[in-house]
Amino acid sequence: MIGRLNHLAIAVPDLDAAAAQYRDTLGADVGAPQDEPDHGVTVVFITLPNTKIELLYPLGPDSPIRGFLDKNPAGGIHHVCYEVEDILAARDKLVESGARVLGSGEPKIGAHGKPVLFLHPKDFNGCLVELEQV
Amino acid sequence: MIGRLNHLAIAVPDLDAAAAQYRDTLGADVGAPQDEPDHGVTVVFITLPNTKIELLYPLGPDSPIRGFLDKNPAGGIHHVCYEVEDILAARDKLVESGARVLGSGEPKIGAHGKPVLFLHPKDFNGCLVELEQV
Repeated sequence: MIGRLNHLAIAVPDLDAAAAQYRDTLGADVGAPQDEPDHGVTVVFITLPNTKIELLYPLGPDSPIRGFLDKNPAGGIHHVCYEVEDILAARDKLVESGARVLGSGEPKIGAHGKPVLFLHPKDFNGCLVELEQV
Repeated sequence: MIGRLNHLAIAVPDLDAAAAQYRDTLGADVGAPQDEPDHGVTVVFITLPNTKIELLYPLGPDSPIRGFLDKNPAGGIHHVCYEVEDILAARDKLVESGARVLGSGEPKIGAHGKPVLFLHPKDFNGCLVELEQV
């Protein structure tokens, strides 16, 4: 069911510093910051040869990243995103297996303009898992 | 400097259950458990089309994963591994930039039989970063 690892998301306390570190010290291909008001984050995408790193920084008072950074002031890996071909079929199979889908259970349009769902970390070895239909 | 995301490592409290979940529920290509006594872990590799997930479970009393699971009983993302072409050149550049290399600072032979180094999570947005020479 799951396909490629679409991206690994890292919440960071200082977006400019983290972007500069990946660009200048780690020598990666780092994009410009993009505000995603619908998701409460500003993101910087880092393009690696086989996948992407998504740096996340809170945007607005209700950002879902703020609580994570309160608990992890230095930052940390926030979620992993796997690609699926059919997000509704994937969801139904997961729910049948006992996994919990966060929110309403209906896909939302994610930062890449494609349908996404998030799965409860307690059901996936402490990892917040995003599924993105590609 | 950094190239492909070689693997994402997830520490899990129940290796059989986690492997079964990735194989049966998530439909991924899941390998057999391998003991890595030199690293204090039993690993299961999950092959995705573009990268690997490495499930980690403690092996032996001095496993570096045990403390992580004590703090994160449900499991969690443990580290991310980026490929580099020249690990000594990468290390020297990172140390020059102020980043700390864990342990002796000399590469060890990792689970894939290739030289690896780990970088201090506090210097990389709370992420434990492994570099592997490929």
